[in-house]
Amino acid sequence: MFFADLPGGLEVLVLLGSASDKAIAEQMVEVFGEFGVRAHFMVCSAHRDHERLAALVPAAESAGARVIIAVAGMAAHLPGVCASLTTLPVIGVPGSSGLLGMDALLSIAQMPPGIPVACMGVDAGRNAALLAVEILALARTELREALKHFREELRRRNREDSAALEQVMK
Amino acid sequence: MFFADLPGGLEVLVLLGSASDKAIAEQMVEVFGEFGVRAHFMVCSAHRDHERLAALVPAAESAGARVIIAVAGMAAHLPGVCASLTTLPVIGVPGSSGLLGMDALLSIAQMPPGIPVACMGVDAGRNAALLAVEILALARTELREALKHFREELRRRNREDSAALEQVMK
Amino acid sequence: MFFADLPGGLEVLVLLGSASDKAIAEQMVEVFGEFGVRAHFMVCSAHRDHERLAALVPAAESAGARVIIAVAGMAAHLPGVCASLTTLPVIGVPGSSGLLGMDALLSIAQMPPGIPVACMGVDAGRNAALLAVEILALARTELREALKHFREELRRRNREDSAALEQVMK
Amino acid sequence: MFFADLPGGLEVLVLLGSASDKAIAEQMVEVFGEFGVRAHFMVCSAHRDHERLAALVPAAESAGARVIIAVAGMAAHLPGVCASLTTLPVIGVPGSSGLLGMDALLSIAQMPPGIPVACMGVDAGRNAALLAVEILALARTELREALKHFREELRRRNREDSAALEQVMK
Amino acid sequence: MFFADLPGGLEVLVLLGSASDKAIAEQMVEVFGEFGVRAHFMVCSAHRDHERLAALVPAAESAGARVIIAVAGMAAHLPGVCASLTTLPVIGVPGSSGLLGMDALLSIAQMPPGIPVACMGVDAGRNAALLAVEILALARTELREALKHFREELRRRNREDSAALEQVMK
Amino acid sequence: MFFADLPGGLEVLVLLGSASDKAIAEQMVEVFGEFGVRAHFMVCSAHRDHERLAALVPAAESAGARVIIAVAGMAAHLPGVCASLTTLPVIGVPGSSGLLGMDALLSIAQMPPGIPVACMGVDAGRNAALLAVEILALARTELREALKHFREELRRRNREDSAALEQVMK
Amino acid sequence: MFFADLPGGLEVLVLLGSASDKAIAEQMVEVFGEFGVRAHFMVCSAHRDHERLAALVPAAESAGARVIIAVAGMAAHLPGVCASLTTLPVIGVPGSSGLLGMDALLSIAQMPPGIPVACMGVDAGRNAALLAVEILALARTELREALKHFREELRRRNREDSAALEQVMK
Amino acid sequence: MFFADLPGGLEVLVLLGSASDKAIAEQMVEVFGEFGVRAHFMVCSAHRDHERLAALVPAAESAGARVIIAVAGMAAHLPGVCASLTTLPVIGVPGSSGLLGMDALLSIAQMPPGIPVACMGVDAGRNAALLAVEILALARTELREALKHFREELRRRNREDSAALEQVMK
Repeated sequence: MFFADLPGGLEVLVLLGSASDKAIAEQMVEVFGEFGVRAHFMVCSAHRDHERLAALVPAAESAGARVIIAVAGMAAHLPGVCASLTTLPVIGVPGSSGLLGMDALLSIAQMPPGIPVACMGVDAGRNAALLAVEILALARTELREALKHFREELRRRNREDSAALEQVMK
Repeated sequence: MFFADLPGGLEVLVLLGSASDKAIAEQMVEVFGEFGVRAHFMVCSAHRDHERLAALVPAAESAGARVIIAVAGMAAHLPGVCASLTTLPVIGVPGSSGLLGMDALLSIAQMPPGIPVACMGVDAGRNAALLAVEILALARTELREALKHFREELRRRNREDSAALEQVMK
Repeated sequence: MFFADLPGGLEVLVLLGSASDKAIAEQMVEVFGEFGVRAHFMVCSAHRDHERLAALVPAAESAGARVIIAVAGMAAHLPGVCASLTTLPVIGVPGSSGLLGMDALLSIAQMPPGIPVACMGVDAGRNAALLAVEILALARTELREALKHFREELRRRNREDSAALEQVMK
Repeated sequence: MFFADLPGGLEVLVLLGSASDKAIAEQMVEVFGEFGVRAHFMVCSAHRDHERLAALVPAAESAGARVIIAVAGMAAHLPGVCASLTTLPVIGVPGSSGLLGMDALLSIAQMPPGIPVACMGVDAGRNAALLAVEILALARTELREALKHFREELRRRNREDSAALEQVMK
Repeated sequence: MFFADLPGGLEVLVLLGSASDKAIAEQMVEVFGEFGVRAHFMVCSAHRDHERLAALVPAAESAGARVIIAVAGMAAHLPGVCASLTTLPVIGVPGSSGLLGMDALLSIAQMPPGIPVACMGVDAGRNAALLAVEILALARTELREALKHFREELRRRNREDSAALEQVMK
Repeated sequence: MFFADLPGGLEVLVLLGSASDKAIAEQMVEVFGEFGVRAHFMVCSAHRDHERLAALVPAAESAGARVIIAVAGMAAHLPGVCASLTTLPVIGVPGSSGLLGMDALLSIAQMPPGIPVACMGVDAGRNAALLAVEILALARTELREALKHFREELRRRNREDSAALEQVMK
Repeated sequence: MFFADLPGGLEVLVLLGSASDKAIAEQMVEVFGEFGVRAHFMVCSAHRDHERLAALVPAAESAGARVIIAVAGMAAHLPGVCASLTTLPVIGVPGSSGLLGMDALLSIAQMPPGIPVACMGVDAGRNAALLAVEILALARTELREALKHFREELRRRNREDSAALEQVMK
Repeated sequence: MFFADLPGGLEVLVLLGSASDKAIAEQMVEVFGEFGVRAHFMVCSAHRDHERLAALVPAAESAGARVIIAVAGMAAHLPGVCASLTTLPVIGVPGSSGLLGMDALLSIAQMPPGIPVACMGVDAGRNAALLAVEILALARTELREALKHFREELRRRNREDSAALEQVMK
């Protein structure tokens, strides 16, 4: 129902606790575009729309999602609640809206034994998307190659940055 | 169903995230005994038994509960998830099992706008029970008197402690 | 005396430690307006006008107040001192004026055994007002309905936000 | 070479920064045993044996490893360095040996853009192993069933704990 | 009334928030004994016996007290409330009973503008007493000499410690 | 030598670790002006001009100074080093230039046993000056009266703020 | 190869984790220019270009470098990884890009036993360069003189700042 | 005078703020013994014996010391004060006696611009000694070889630990 009309199916469901986390989602859009990963972005607060969340997560699983990414700030419960609703890997991204993000970081990283969440750095949407790609690559081997290429790009740009700096600071 | 056979009905539902929070619950048993409040204690993790929690909280409301107390350590989501399931006042008690309780404190206090949780101090079961009594006293006025008496007892003991200290340190 | 001329009496007394906490109070004005709760707002520092505070809190109780909300930043003593002056439920809101609000949060949450304060998140005036409404609803049952409606509104807006995001990120 | 004689190949490589992290590894042994996952445990400090680490990680990848788990305390660089050596998903577990684990938690969670590490809670070996199983289940679907069974066991035990508590606190 | 029968009058009033802070008080007894300062020790919680506190502090001032020392842990309001009740210098000692004393330290140090408290280190009863002596010495000049002698003793012991260490580590 | 030509002598020496702490000093100028206290302001870093500091502090003592105030940010050693050079009361003000002032606060508050420093809140120049006045009032009784008047002013303004707020929020 | 064409050889290699740390490097350029120290600045991320780093550090050692300075923010692994690649003294500078720099500070300071890194304050490029000069002065004695002259300049400017302040605040 | 009778002269002066830091010094004794470095250990508090410190540090410099190591807990001023007294490299070791060592870590790492201190991890005496050896090796090249050998030993033991673990966890 939720994901019936997604062309080509769904690989990653990205849930934002609130619309104010949009900038973090945009980092992911870029990564998923680059790797050709079919991600779907929704807003669903763990606290404000609990019922819909409890329907969404299993629906995503049925629709073929293999990874869930949940973004939330402050007392960030969304990733943990998602993790309690599925056995798919859940990646949590703490937002910096509260106490510099320390509140969200601890609310996500310190999950109790039995229900893991993969915690990213504060506002680290880009890394969340990359970890999702790394996980998807276990089954889609062409992504492994793309990731290696991506790493080479990182390396190349790092060396370019060095060359530029060396030029300036000579 | 859950609370059908409780003699005399239910005023406060106390939920522990795990059995290891029992010492915090025991502080409450004492307070509720003293004030004659009908509290019921259960273990129900927000993460490990999400479904049961989603049934328990409305059931407690139907059974007459007027306050929910939720105790949890680490990434303490239980109070927040309870709050999302009811409009009864929810009191959260952070347990010290993780990073001295700082993780649980932030996971409980920093709730997003719209869904409040009344956060207590770390391991402060006694105060959670007392706040519940203060709330119940809005409708049961005899509790107001009992609370005043309790405060006088606190005062009396504080003065006794002073007398004892003054004796020793003279 | 203090509250003699309030039309319709008083349900919630909101005390600000200083006039600089006004923005937090304004969040509450909105909530109380929405729910039709009779709140009265005053400035009264625990440190600068101790004597008046010691008169105000019992006067509010006599005038019918059922909940006290106290807002303060830095070494935020106002909520705790209010709590020591009444057995009404006291809700404390830490302001972010000091060390990001961490100082005020700990000064409010970590109350010693016997005198509870319901601690909110940093600058969370909105949630303080909502918790007050939840507590008042124990005696005024029409507020319970209004709270359920309010939650539905939250849900509806959360879903609208999702629809908007899905549109943009398609 | 490193993993030539492992019977049945390798699914998860677990690296400990030092032998003192053994208790965290033992939590994993139990989980992997339960799920029938072929994990191999080694000690390899990012700082003390950098060269060997740079050989080990690609060798594990060649030997079939699909997930790397790295455990380290204090300025915990091991997970990040592993992540820089592979595009397999890397799970980092902060040990509590330093400043309660806060130093290791930040050293693992706050990875720079481009090289993700999935950070667990402090000393949370059990959750690291479970996340690895969740990831492996993308390709080995029988693990998905086993995970669901495991979750049911968690639920069952949570309910048993509740029954026991209710008995005691009646 | 409170201090009517103190032989020789009162120079320093030491207030403990609870009897559990006694070890901190004992550090002070030693210092005051050494310097011949007339200190009186009492237990008086800011929260549990507000009314008595409001009487005690002015009474101490009338009885000749020139410095107030207040010791409290957790959300330590005692020093701040004392400071609001007098214009005598108030010294606050954070106890380590809560979050390692960080909660009490911030609750004491971060006083709002207008009402200063001289904050000591966590559990630093000895230093509180010494600061009180330094303050008293403004009017009792023989204390200045005694303080200089005390400093020489510190120096002498520091040098003895060095000699002992040098002997052992030669 | 240092203070030879100060008209009317010196009551309080205020030392700033660097010129960048000037805004904190300006808070004090206002207070000292109001109370008619003879304060002298200098810049003297504990690290950059150790020798001069070792001369300045005793010289101030000889010139009649009765209190030293030292302001410093980051690893704020100035107050502690001053305290080691005199037995006058030393008040330390942590500046917010480093890690929000938490580094300076701990560097000042956590003095080792034997050498006390009276720590103020972050950037709290106003309170430092007021504490100095409270201390000076032990010998200059007219300051005690002025302090009481000052407190009344605080109270009066607090009540005015309340009246203004009540007007607006009616 | 890397440093073949540096005129006059290399004394200090400065590595930045990313080009965004350039402002910290500029503080060093100024110091090294003043002291006539031959420093070379490059960008080389520990995570993005691990292989090049493993070549760069030994190459710098062969080219005559006597100190390595590494600058990095967030989970700052660069200094520690450099230290694992050489026995030259390594100085680490935490950048403030993440959680105010607390994350980088702990990631650098809390190195495990055996592989030291000399940690500087957050963003403290100037001090890193000065420490490098102090170390180089062990072999180049004319730097010792220059450092003494530099300290005198600090002192002179500190006194000028004092004179200016005294003029203004008279 | 201080170091006149040290056989063979002095390479490293190690200063402890108090005798209670002895365990940290003992870690160093072992390292210096292994590398044949002539270190001398003394106790000298920055606060309790300021004058002697101001004499000791230049005397050590005259006696040939090339590195100063200073160990202190709480508001750890000793390393910074040493650094203000010399242009030799100063290594600071924060002790864990206060707030887990966080207070000492910040008091040492966050030195103001101009006076660097090389900060180690909490209680990290071993690393302080190793950094001193790395610095001394700039002039005594045989130490460079010894350091390489030491690193090989670290590696060897790390591999032995791995072999032992692999044996146990097979």
